Parts: sequence; C-alpha cells; structure tokens
Amino acid sequence: MRIHLVGEAAEHAADLEAHLQQPAQIAVLPAAAAHSDRHDDGIGADDVVVSLRFTRPGSTAPAFRLLHVPGAGLDGIDLAALHPGTAVANVFEHEIPIAEFVLARLLEWEIRAGAMQAAFDAESWPDAYRGRVPHGELHGRTLGIIGYGRIGQAIATRAAAFGMRVRAVDDRAVPSAAAELLPQARLDEVLATADHLVVACPLTPATSGLIDRAALRRMRPHAVLVNVSRGPVVDESALFDALRDNVIGGAVIDVWYSYPRSFEDRPAPASHPFWELPNAWCTPHSSAWTRELTHRRYRAIALNIDRLLTGQPLTNLVRAGR
Amino acid sequence: MRIHLVGEAAEHAADLEAHLQQPAQIAVLPAAAAHSDRHDDGIGADDVVVSLRFTRPGSTAPAFRLLHVPGAGLDGIDLAALHPGTAVANVFEHEIPIAEFVLARLLEWEIRAGAMQAAFDAESWPDAYRGRVPHGELHGRTLGIIGYGRIGQAIATRAAAFGMRVRAVDDRAVPSAAAELLPQARLDEVLATADHLVVACPLTPATSGLIDRAALRRMRPHAVLVNVSRGPVVDESALFDALRDNVIGGAVIDVWYSYPRSFEDRPAPASHPFWELPNAWCTPHSSAWTRELTHRRYRAIALNIDRLLTGQPLTNLVRAGR
Repeated sequence: MRIHLVGEAAEHAADLEAHLQQPAQIAVLPAAAAHSDRHDDGIGADDVVVSLRFTRPGSTAPAFRLLHVPGAGLDGIDLAALHPGTAVANVFEHEIPIAEFVLARLLEWEIRAGAMQAAFDAESWPDAYRGRVPHGELHGRTLGIIGYGRIGQAIATRAAAFGMRVRAVDDRAVPSAAAELLPQARLDEVLATADHLVVACPLTPATSGLIDRAALRRMRPHAVLVNVSRGPVVDESALFDALRDNVIGGAVIDVWYSYPRSFEDRPAPASHPFWELPNAWCTPHSSAWTRELTHRRYRAIALNIDRLLTGQPLTNLVRAGR
Repeated sequence: MRIHLVGEAAEHAADLEAHLQQPAQIAVLPAAAAHSDRHDDGIGADDVVVSLRFTRPGSTAPAFRLLHVPGAGLDGIDLAALHPGTAVANVFEHEIPIAEFVLARLLEWEIRAGAMQAAFDAESWPDAYRGRVPHGELHGRTLGIIGYGRIGQAIATRAAAFGMRVRAVDDRAVPSAAAELLPQARLDEVLATADHLVVACPLTPATSGLIDRAALRRMRPHAVLVNVSRGPVVDESALFDALRDNVIGGAVIDVWYSYPRSFEDRPAPASHPFWELPNAWCTPHSSAWTRELTHRRYRAIALNIDRLLTGQPLTNLVRAGR
C-alpha cells in the first residue's frame, strides 16, 4: 500500500510520516496528477491519494482505496470522476484558528491596545496614564452567531468563557451548553439583540445575501459584524453603506468578493473601498492560516490512514467506498 | 441612614441609586473629606462612607457603620484612623477586564491581525492573499500564571477555553479545574515549560524582583512575559536585557516602575526604553480600565449596602466592625 501525495501535499510528507503508526510507503506525484490520467498507472487498488484537487477531464480514475483531501472544502474534487469503490475523507481543524481570530478581533475592538501601544513613550507616559479613556469589555455582552457548525461552536465555547451570552442561529445544528440555539426563523431577533454578530455559515443559495440591507438595519448601532465565512453571505453594497453611514458599529472582514484566479489576475477584493473606512477592519482571508493548522491536518490524515490499515471505521468520511 | 460619597465617588451616585433596593439617602462630600475631620459632624453612627482614600492626620474618625472602598487596593486607607466599630469592605471586578486584556494581547501576539489590517488595500490584495504567512495559535500551548488569585483564575478560565494547558504557581490558592496548581517551590518548572507567562501576583517583599535574570533565562526563547500586576515583580534591568538580547520572545508590559505622583511630576515609566524594543508591547496601566468596571463596582457596593440594611452578612469584608 502506497500513499501518493499530489502537488503541495508533498511538502507535508514529514508531518504525515511522523504520525503514521502502521508501515506505509509514501510517494510523490506532481501537481498535474490531480487533473490528468498520465500518472494513474502508478496508483494501485489498495493505495491512498492525498490531494486538494482531483478531476479527470475526459476519463475516469482507476480504483484506489481512499482519496484524502487535506482540507475541508471539496470544490476541487470531482466525485463523479472517482471509481465508485474509492472512499473520500476530508479534514477540518480550522475551526480552532478561526475562533481565535474572531475573539482576538472582538477583544481588540473593545480594548484598542494596539493604539495605546503605538502611542506609548517616556515623554507622554504621565499624560497617557492620567488621561486613560475607559475601554470596553466582552463580558456580559451578547454574541450572535449565524451558522452553528464546527466554527460557530468553537467560537461559542470561547465566547462563553468570557461571560458572553451566545445566541446561535442554525436549523440543523445540535444544541450545546455554550449557546442558545435558535431556528433561522428567529434570525431577526438575534440581529436585534446581538452586540456583535459572527457570520460562520457556509455559502449556499440560501445564505447568499442573507445579511442584506434590512438585516443590517435591524442590528444594534454599536454592533460589529464579523465575516469569516464567505464574502457574499453579506450583501456588499449594503454592508459598505451601513459602515459608511454608521448604521452598525463596524465590521471585521476577512473574506472577500473577488479572489485572484491566476498570477496575472489582480482583482480588487470588493467593488467598494472598505479598507478606506475606519470602522472596517480588513484582513486577507487569514483567519485560519496558522502553522499549527497544517500539522494538525496531516496528523489527522495519518490517524485515518492508520484506521484504514487496521480495519477501523474512518473519520470525516465524505463518502464511503463501495 | 445616609451614604456619603467622597470626592470622585460622587460621580457614580446614579449607578449606586439605580441598584439600591432599600431606601437610603445619598449625600456628597468634597474630596478633602477623605483627609480632614472638618466634615465629620455630618456623618452619623449608622452611615456609610464610600471613598477610595481615608486618613485622619492628627485625629480619629467618628463612629460610622461601614467604609466601602470602591476599589480593590487599600493603600489610601488608614485603618487605624477609623473607629473600631466601623466595618471596611472593598470591591473587585477588575479581574474581568484584566483577563480580557491578557488574552487579547496573547492572541494578537500570535496572529498579528493589526499588521495585516494596516497593510490591506485593493492594490496589494492579490499579493497579500497569495503571500499569506502562517501565524500562531494559543491552542495546545502552555500558559504559566504566577499568582492564582481572582485575576489568575479569570485568566485561566479563558485560556483553558482556548485549549491551553494552564499551570499556576501559588502557595495559598484553592485548586480549580482550569489550571494545574503548583507550589512556589516549583516555579522553575513552570518557567521552563510555559509558552507564555503571566505575572498576576501582588507586589510584596517576597515577590519584588521574583522574575529576575535567572528566572528569565529559564524561560523558553519564544515565550512572552505578560505583566499586569506591578512593575517591580519583574527586575527591570534583567527584563530589558532579556528582551534586547532575545533571551525571551517578548513582553506585554502594562504596569511600570515609576508613576506620576502629581500633575507636575513627569517621570519616565522605566529607566530603560522598553518602548523602543519591537518585542516589548507597552501600554499605560490600562488593562482594568473599562467603562463596565465602575458600573459593576458601584452595583456591588449597592448590593452590600442592601445587605447591611437588611441584616445580612457583607461580602468582601476587609474587617468587620465591632
């Protein structure tokens, strides 16, 4: 049995090897192997392929045991191109850094320690000390969370430890102690009561534009909208107008409306200049992007391959192989 | 029964009144009443005085029921000047904003979202997105806490929710689920294993200079030292050298070595220019300084006065009246 690491997955061979308990041979395939059958002869029926992308334009893949995607999203995978006997699994772990990012930004929104730090020096110290302006707290405030999946839950657990009241909107989630779980039909109530609101739902036809002009008008005037999901869940023009006109307190925007599709492609992230507004805190889709994320993901893949080799049920199965 | 608000306490009369359940008359005394007997005639035997400071140079105070200090520190109170029948109580509540500050700074140390935000614009977006540098996480790391009182515990609860391993050093504290509690004798072990270390103990002869050159050398080279207690718990020159020479990763310094004692007094906060070091994050003793702190404190005082009026035992008693 071989593990084929396709393209950038090859960079993480050491991580994978360090966590594998069962003997397995690790092989490397070029990035092109994700989209071409030219390398398929080397893939055996018992093998595992680790790749973020997998298509077979004009052909179908040979039978192999498991395609392990080293990320959560399946947008790069053409399930129909796989042999029906091939199982597919993915990995998560990004809920941890995303929750840390959300709490970091909301705490800083309240405290503004960065500005205090930037202004600190020996000369201004007596005035800075005597002239301290009281800042805000998260304690006792209400956090609304739209989408109570892994990410929403990771945010809720941490927010609850700060003494926040957490109200999550999700029609399919399982209740947990960290949040009051409400159906989508009660979204307006959450919008109207939240001091801060996090968008943590997937982008689907049902959630595209979910936070529109009317939703933003229902929010409290000091509330901060945090988007760590996908840009288009929030209506772009409506958000820009709401920030410019101080309809809401602010926004933490880590996800955008246009992404570069190639090296030459240089779109603006949005058609409105959010980054020129003082109450829009813009970052380049970085919330999940940690050193530890990749380590955890390849450890999870190693554990899953060990399960495969010892006949135990796999975790995070997207589809079982026949 | 009257409640006398002395000096700046008078600014919070509305907060107090809003929370009092029992009828009580609120009176205001000038700031000078804290240090002079000129206003003592108006203070009755059943009255309550709310004041951050209380001395009687050359005299003693008349008998009254309760001196309620609207802060935690008793450095402004001369207990010996009070009638032995006067009870003394204080308030806390600052553990909440201090814990929020500590987590805010440690999260930002790992994430550096402020720098990402400052660099964000339409032109650089494609490069910023493609060139993202992975940041750090708090999850899975070890937080050392020196001093496991109210502040240490509030920090531990929140750090534990982030998946940190928390090791607290305190000889007198009560164990709690959020942290492993170790005696002072095992401080070196905590210094050597902590990824980040928070100083949250009071300044006493035993803790002055507790974090000295040797202690800093025991710390991990990436570790960040956070001081939200009192400056002199950490040896000033040793800390400066350790930061300048990268013996430790960095420091979050909110408490200092010299404070202005009057409007004309303009000392430097320290004799070394910490604020010129990129790995020293300096703020002007602001961690506890929130709008909500004062509200919570005056609510706590109102609840305590209600207890007094209804014959229930007081909370946060510094000393019981005879």
